[in-house]
Amino acid sequence: MSAPLQIGLLVFPRVTQLDFTGPLQVFSSVPGATVHLIWKTLDPVPSDSVLMLTPSVTFADCPQLDVICIPGGFGTDALLNDEETLDFVRKQAASAKFVTSVCTGSLVLGAAGLLRGYNAATHWSAVEMLALFGATPTKTRVCIDRNRVTGGGVTAGIDFALTLVSLLVDRTTAEAIQLRLEYNPAPPFNAGSPDTAPAEVLALMKERVAPFQARRLDAAKRAAERLI
Amino acid sequence: MSAPLQIGLLVFPRVTQLDFTGPLQVFSSVPGATVHLIWKTLDPVPSDSVLMLTPSVTFADCPQLDVICIPGGFGTDALLNDEETLDFVRKQAASAKFVTSVCTGSLVLGAAGLLRGYNAATHWSAVEMLALFGATPTKTRVCIDRNRVTGGGVTAGIDFALTLVSLLVDRTTAEAIQLRLEYNPAPPFNAGSPDTAPAEVLALMKERVAPFQARRLDAAKRAAERLI
Repeated sequence: MSAPLQIGLLVFPRVTQLDFTGPLQVFSSVPGATVHLIWKTLDPVPSDSVLMLTPSVTFADCPQLDVICIPGGFGTDALLNDEETLDFVRKQAASAKFVTSVCTGSLVLGAAGLLRGYNAATHWSAVEMLALFGATPTKTRVCIDRNRVTGGGVTAGIDFALTLVSLLVDRTTAEAIQLRLEYNPAPPFNAGSPDTAPAEVLALMKERVAPFQARRLDAAKRAAERLI
Repeated sequence: MSAPLQIGLLVFPRVTQLDFTGPLQVFSSVPGATVHLIWKTLDPVPSDSVLMLTPSVTFADCPQLDVICIPGGFGTDALLNDEETLDFVRKQAASAKFVTSVCTGSLVLGAAGLLRGYNAATHWSAVEMLALFGATPTKTRVCIDRNRVTGGGVTAGIDFALTLVSLLVDRTTAEAIQLRLEYNPAPPFNAGSPDTAPAEVLALMKERVAPFQARRLDAAKRAAERLI
């Protein structure tokens, strides 16, 4: 019997919890996989909501991963210039089979220098920023470029994770997980993308995210300068 | 200004975490809503995966909720005959605007006597069991019957929560959340329902869930007897 797959998801303050709880549900259903929630210490960290997150392993104690996955959220702004985190991600990425992200987690991969020359996806509100790190911004829900697999915003993490399981194990395993999770989505509205959302909804969200985008762009520019 | 909406999700040992983390992400994005994770004590409880869950409020300290939501998972088997939990759910349901569930959480509503004469949805593997509680099993992702709003299996929780926000607040608010969460799903395979999954995948899952179904049916029958 082969060694269990080691799959690790970074958790950090102000992570968008669904960015990683979607993939976590999928990865946890892979027979024989061991899933880790990784942070600097084992102290619980606050997510973007009332949910507190308890890491299962520290950077120092984390085994070499087959898959490293960085979720997104407002908390990624701080990670873009956090050498301790970027070092951990770089070291794991050097030997991982797949180096992955969901949502603005791809900016962290970019800040670690891991997306130079790669196509990558992220949340629709951040996609242009990928170019700062030498990546080619890609507006898809799942972007596969060699062993970099990056997902779009938040709920794209479920599509991402099922795709990754099909690459990591096989299609039947991914399909069985899809059936167990009854992932047969039927959104009640058609507002899930800037291309389909009603104009007033898009305008509302653009206005709401503008201050966060400005902060993120500032952090991304500083990170990109440090990369050179 | 009106009082904030009080939205509460039950957390319990062996809950399927995506059953509630999907809705939690949606509910947490409702302007002015306060979201609670409710259990008997504030001690962390294990989910169905490596994720530990820290309740934010106890049964005793929980305010009257506008929305009570019961997620599902293997852990619901124990709740079906747990009077302390069923009492709490019944008391909240008496004055809540919406009494809701995701996945096998609807069996808990049923065991509390709250679905008698209602249409209700649940995970595909449990749908027939709803009849034990006097409900009409409904094979939809979101089932609305008066103030009972029940979702199908696991990922149906996202469709459920967006629908509920449109009822609770308005459609534009729900659409803005859908856009923020980039909920524009594109499942890589078409295996998310027993009606579309490849025959061998369905056979595999049916075999795998059979022992769990037997245990669940036993718990549901005992709960139904206590209801009479």
